[in-house]
Amino acid sequence: MLCRNGTVALWRAHMDRLRSGCERLRIPVPDETELQEDLGRLASPQDGNGVFRLQVTAGEGGRAYGRPAPCRPNRVSSWRPLPAYPKRYWQEGVRLHLCRLRLGRQPLLAGIKHCNRLEYVLARSEWQDADIPEGLLCDSEGHVIEGVVSNTFAVAGGELLTPQLEECGVAGVMQARVRKIAEHAGLVVRQERFPLETWLEADEVFMTNSLIGIWPVTAIGHKRLSQGPVTRRLRGSLLEYQLGMEDLADGARPREGGS
Amino acid sequence: MLCRNGTVALWRAHMDRLRSGCERLRIPVPDETELQEDLGRLASPQDGNGVFRLQVTAGEGGRAYGRPAPCRPNRVSSWRPLPAYPKRYWQEGVRLHLCRLRLGRQPLLAGIKHCNRLEYVLARSEWQDADIPEGLLCDSEGHVIEGVVSNTFAVAGGELLTPQLEECGVAGVMQARVRKIAEHAGLVVRQERFPLETWLEADEVFMTNSLIGIWPVTAIGHKRLSQGPVTRRLRGSLLEYQLGMEDLADGARPREGGS
Repeated sequence: MLCRNGTVALWRAHMDRLRSGCERLRIPVPDETELQEDLGRLASPQDGNGVFRLQVTAGEGGRAYGRPAPCRPNRVSSWRPLPAYPKRYWQEGVRLHLCRLRLGRQPLLAGIKHCNRLEYVLARSEWQDADIPEGLLCDSEGHVIEGVVSNTFAVAGGELLTPQLEECGVAGVMQARVRKIAEHAGLVVRQERFPLETWLEADEVFMTNSLIGIWPVTAIGHKRLSQGPVTRRLRGSLLEYQLGMEDLADGARPREGGS
Repeated sequence: MLCRNGTVALWRAHMDRLRSGCERLRIPVPDETELQEDLGRLASPQDGNGVFRLQVTAGEGGRAYGRPAPCRPNRVSSWRPLPAYPKRYWQEGVRLHLCRLRLGRQPLLAGIKHCNRLEYVLARSEWQDADIPEGLLCDSEGHVIEGVVSNTFAVAGGELLTPQLEECGVAGVMQARVRKIAEHAGLVVRQERFPLETWLEADEVFMTNSLIGIWPVTAIGHKRLSQGPVTRRLRGSLLEYQLGMEDLADGARPREGGS
């Protein structure tokens, strides 16, 4: 979660997603007051600007895959500095690696920000080019799904498209936020299944997550794309959210996942 | 891994599977001599009878899903007492819960004994009946795959059937062992895709893993099955392997996963 002056941006959305994920995984939902206390403790020795990371586990269990009964969940709260990406990722856009790995489909886990991310680790190991910060993932049927650490949008025929995440993928709070902003601005938004071709032939493509806001996309693999008016307009609506992120010194710190 | 008098049964098979899993996940393979030393240290303060558990990680990484370069793997070796199941699980057989959860298909991870087991945790939470020690899992297409912590075999038309694990599931060392024993005994063994119906209508069904050896199956959900001659014969071939397991006092210790 992106934290500014000790306050988490989109706190309500993060908490709602946490609750939904816990319920689907049958883990008691952590008390929000305790999380706020964690945040206060972690943020106050710093300048209050950073990344608040929270993991919830089902607690210590027995052998194999059985759950302890009653389930006494643990939480792991941690603090990290803001990621420092090159400013041009926002201003000029990013190139995407087109991942060969296809995500498996599991509706029971789809959308949840859980920690079983071996597929994403394998996908991220497909490329080493330091100038390519993100990859585009499709599912086993060839539908475009998301980035390795972000969600994705395309503009085609004047409409804003973003993949349905009912079979795989992570439902990013920034994906939902951008969707709302776009609808409020009068854009038609379609969240459906789309083949990769729709993205390759789109007028504009961009990536979102709660740490980066919006990154325009300049290429998917060898296919070049140009930044267009819809992406610029939506970025404009997020300027306050992204404020400061683009002003960090261009750094070489590793990239951050925070969809 | 099942350990007797300080020696791991099927050590070669476990090591081969570990090597194959590490290679597929691009983790340097741990040195076998070091693993033997771990085993010696862990087993010697005990009576040398127990479960030797080994986890290998890709080491400490940076943010998100990037791998550290170079990859400096960690290993976690641990020791647990032998699981104490009721003797009747071997002698009379076990009932299986028929899991509603369908395993997702991901050929890049299929067969590997990795730790991303959220599907199995959810599957195991489907039933609480303490007298049902195992569940049967199918994939999203309705093919029978395995148990939650074991592999599965069926006998039909005089042939021994066991599921192909190229899309999901864990390739158990005991599955391979039983397959070899059966072929050596002159049985026709088919490892293919089979619909659940084949299992429900089979003459015999049994489960295998490296800690239990063979458990005959007496029911899958509401469908009753009876223990038959092929299961008995194969159990006979594993008597030495299972020696002692069935003689543990009937206990209430939680079940163990060791496929």
